Amino acid sequence: MRLKRSHKCGELGIENIGETVILNGWVERIRDLGGIKFGLLRDRYGKVQFVVDPENTEIYEIAKNIGNEYVIAIKGVVRKRPDDAINKNMKTGEIELFVEDLEILSESETPPIYVNKDDDVSENLRLKYRYLDLRKDKMKNNLLLRHKALQITRQYFSENDFMEIETPYLTKSTPEGARDFLVPSRLKPGNFYALPQSPQLFKQLLMVSGFDRYFQIARCFRDEDFRADRQPEFSQIDFEMSFVEMDDILELTEGLLKKLFKELVNYDLELPLRRYTYDEVMDKYGSDKPDTRYGLEIQDFTDVFKNTGATFIKSAIEKGEKVRGIILENKADKFSRKRIDEYTEFAKSVGAGGLIWVKNEKGNIKSSIKKIAEPELQKLVENNVIKDNDITFILVGEKDNINKILGHIRNKLIKEEMPKKDGFDVLWVIDFPMFAWDEEENRLVAEHHPFTMPKLDEFEKYADSDPLKIRAQCYDLVINGYEMASGSIRVHRKDLQNKIFELIGLSEKEINEKFGFLIEAFKYGPPPHGGAAIGFDRLIAIMAGEDSIKEVIAFPKTASGSDPMTEAPSPVSERQLKELKINVDL
Amino acid sequence: MRLKRSHKCGELGIENIGETVILNGWVERIRDLGGIKFGLLRDRYGKVQFVVDPENTEIYEIAKNIGNEYVIAIKGVVRKRPDDAINKNMKTGEIELFVEDLEILSESETPPIYVNKDDDVSENLRLKYRYLDLRKDKMKNNLLLRHKALQITRQYFSENDFMEIETPYLTKSTPEGARDFLVPSRLKPGNFYALPQSPQLFKQLLMVSGFDRYFQIARCFRDEDFRADRQPEFSQIDFEMSFVEMDDILELTEGLLKKLFKELVNYDLELPLRRYTYDEVMDKYGSDKPDTRYGLEIQDFTDVFKNTGATFIKSAIEKGEKVRGIILENKADKFSRKRIDEYTEFAKSVGAGGLIWVKNEKGNIKSSIKKIAEPELQKLVENNVIKDNDITFILVGEKDNINKILGHIRNKLIKEEMPKKDGFDVLWVIDFPMFAWDEEENRLVAEHHPFTMPKLDEFEKYADSDPLKIRAQCYDLVINGYEMASGSIRVHRKDLQNKIFELIGLSEKEINEKFGFLIEAFKYGPPPHGGAAIGFDRLIAIMAGEDSIKEVIAFPKTASGSDPMTEAPSPVSERQLKELKINVDL
Repeated sequence: MRLKRSHKCGELGIENIGETVILNGWVERIRDLGGIKFGLLRDRYGKVQFVVDPENTEIYEIAKNIGNEYVIAIKGVVRKRPDDAINKNMKTGEIELFVEDLEILSESETPPIYVNKDDDVSENLRLKYRYLDLRKDKMKNNLLLRHKALQITRQYFSENDFMEIETPYLTKSTPEGARDFLVPSRLKPGNFYALPQSPQLFKQLLMVSGFDRYFQIARCFRDEDFRADRQPEFSQIDFEMSFVEMDDILELTEGLLKKLFKELVNYDLELPLRRYTYDEVMDKYGSDKPDTRYGLEIQDFTDVFKNTGATFIKSAIEKGEKVRGIILENKADKFSRKRIDEYTEFAKSVGAGGLIWVKNEKGNIKSSIKKIAEPELQKLVENNVIKDNDITFILVGEKDNINKILGHIRNKLIKEEMPKKDGFDVLWVIDFPMFAWDEEENRLVAEHHPFTMPKLDEFEKYADSDPLKIRAQCYDLVINGYEMASGSIRVHRKDLQNKIFELIGLSEKEINEKFGFLIEAFKYGPPPHGGAAIGFDRLIAIMAGEDSIKEVIAFPKTASGSDPMTEAPSPVSERQLKELKINVDL
Repeated sequence: MRLKRSHKCGELGIENIGETVILNGWVERIRDLGGIKFGLLRDRYGKVQFVVDPENTEIYEIAKNIGNEYVIAIKGVVRKRPDDAINKNMKTGEIELFVEDLEILSESETPPIYVNKDDDVSENLRLKYRYLDLRKDKMKNNLLLRHKALQITRQYFSENDFMEIETPYLTKSTPEGARDFLVPSRLKPGNFYALPQSPQLFKQLLMVSGFDRYFQIARCFRDEDFRADRQPEFSQIDFEMSFVEMDDILELTEGLLKKLFKELVNYDLELPLRRYTYDEVMDKYGSDKPDTRYGLEIQDFTDVFKNTGATFIKSAIEKGEKVRGIILENKADKFSRKRIDEYTEFAKSVGAGGLIWVKNEKGNIKSSIKKIAEPELQKLVENNVIKDNDITFILVGEKDNINKILGHIRNKLIKEEMPKKDGFDVLWVIDFPMFAWDEEENRLVAEHHPFTMPKLDEFEKYADSDPLKIRAQCYDLVINGYEMASGSIRVHRKDLQNKIFELIGLSEKEINEKFGFLIEAFKYGPPPHGGAAIGFDRLIAIMAGEDSIKEVIAFPKTASGSDPMTEAPSPVSERQLKELKINVDL
């Protein structure tokens, strides 16, 4: 290179005035002001204004041909900008480069999307020209944040005696919920590898191996239908520890989070994090991943309606059902009849029979049950529970069920009615149920996975009588309403494991098919162990203030799992299919 | 846990004498000596001897049931060993734990492979019980070395302003030599993702994006026939830089190597590394990845034979062919007639017409050409070129061709006759040819890949007249005879790129099919850039002193690409195939 850079654009400042430097970079913009060319040169480290004077005829002629996004090399003297041209908002805002030599390193056609300003282009176009989209400051900063998070995370685990161990990507189906991506084997035709949904089994095997503490920032693959900002491949911070209890894992995770939030976004996370039990969050927020910043806690009105004349409520209460609701303060005027109907429809779509509403309009009660329950509503108003201009949504029914529905309504209210909050709401949810009842299969299923350690005292007490009462030694980390991490202490005792398999009705054959090699490994001295996995993409998105994880992934896929840039997935040749001994059968 | 560890096994020493500690770990061995139980407890950090006295009847009864590889927790007082039992070879060799309390955390059946001693078991058995194999000190140390190498590498690149950016694993075929692993798409039936053979195209796109310096320790996938210690998935240190020349990349790589060798195996690498041109190494060693520690340089005997009576040699020389050979010193007595025949067959199998051999037995010449070329052979002996008990292998033919064959013979001699050398032979090979002639397709092909930057002066001079003379701006790193890294400066100029495509006879259609999105990206201001990829598994294997990369991968595959532990690849369900709309057709 004739003009190889001596400096990066971002590092020049008044301290360089008078120096002759060479810069290489992209032309962010260039224009002619009174016959003089003013341009802005950009590299990853910053932007510098440059000036080409027509008196330097040779390079002025070259400069005339330069357009946006050309890559150029310029050599010149750093000088102070005129006072009225100083830009205090950028490090290089007090200087400019007076160009003495210039070389075009490569040209650019007019970019199909803007690089130098925000533009409301379609996602498809952004992804098709991702390499241009990534030139924008926002994307660069997001990926820089991600880069730093990667380094901090690995350093943290290394300093805490964890070993980074890479587990295979060509492996066998893991027994988790989602669908596997398959990879046909050419050397064993008719057989398939699966891309891992997580390194779960491998990390447990590494504990059996005695590695004591393992971590990895692992790519995981799930062939799901890509609703809700999901990606077919995603990254997770994966770790596992031996000879520990739940508290050790929570503490370790908290230490990492504190470091990341402090070093990346200068946010002081207060430790220890709040811990809620599953029962608590379901009771208060109707969700196992609540965003508690928005309040809107679920309230119990059962006592108020105990003696109501509304017979459907009264008889429900007598059956042991509950009356529970959410009060949205000072926004009743925003709920027209039509909007209330919409909320009613929404409630029904998530399982409600109907939705009771109550408004307080300067002391006047409006409500779907005013005719049959006026005295109780009056009491709520008089006791200042439902204040002026509050609107309340109430459900009657079995407690767990209406809590969940109220949770959905709460989320809808937050989205539509609450001003967006800053900061981070970080908490643990613990004491999840060990089992759930699968109505379809008419049997117990493991809520987390069948290697989750139950609470031992509860297991002893209820395994044979009422296993749904047993809670598990597992934990979720929730940030701003997202499930950000999940983990558990694992079962390492054979007797316990067999009993759990028995409870969920797994036959020996099924056990061997699904978990054979882990069961085999556990014959040879598995240590007590546990771990967790943290969703890395979402964590970065939240710290970057992005709603979509696509904004923090260099080359994401669209909702249909395709990449408009490379056009993957794409057809392959007959020869390739023949070698794999597979046919496409559309 | 009732007895949660207070210390790790490896950290105890005489400074802990008198302390009561709790340890958790595996029983490496346990035996009864005069009624007292002596055991060795192992965790990742070390091993500690423990003693169970029969006077503590309760725990002695438990201890009686303990076998090798049981996981136990022991509590007791650290005490000094009797003088005659001190083991100075281990950190904990001066102390032992006098056990006061003991708990079996999990039991172990008799392990199918030994953990506590080396054992000559089959690879298949080792991989089937990999979690036990990994308990061995050697494997643990190899993976610890690998862990450290991962951290040092990322830290090095981060400190040098590189950004770690994760590129997709579900992508489109890269235009490299090997076969792709394919992943059927369910959402776009009949279409396939490919697992990346390398992040080559993505890293070049990241340069187009202006990220300036990128790195990643990337998993790569190649569906090859797994000869020669290859794995279907492997790790490479991948990086790319903008606005640089070859020297920048070599220097950067050398800095990393120096750090790794120093910090991992305390070896001082002398910088700058030696640089050989391709022509030089081919001439001296007949290989572009020579191990120079073994000498055995190829010698040219053409002048000696210029006027020989051996007409086939003489006429070859007159045609411009060469007479070249390798002298193995002081080992003629190890080459029987039968063994020489074997070498002759070997030479033929790699393309030779025949193999000339010459022995000096105390001044007596024995040779396959003694009858027809005695005077020349005599001269070689008299001039002390072929000394007593030396054996020389000689070929006659076109220089490049016989160099390559001699290279194979040289490697065979090294393997069979030279004592294994310690240390590391680290060097660069540069100035590779840009093009090669493909006899089958009767056209030029790119030797490296078609985005490799040619030497510009040579390109200008020879592109139209004799393109085989053009050399490329690419470079290989060779360590101990392995190609350890490979890289190049890339073409970023459109005119040059088009000319190269023209020379290798690629039509516009083919160009677009193979490299479409990169060509498209290069319309919008690609910077000058270059990079390299370092084979991570092999690098670790060499530093660990292992011949096979399987010894430094936690869960490798067998030569047929399968995993005896998980039994991957394996059959999948009809439902899975139906969802993907593919059939198996055996």
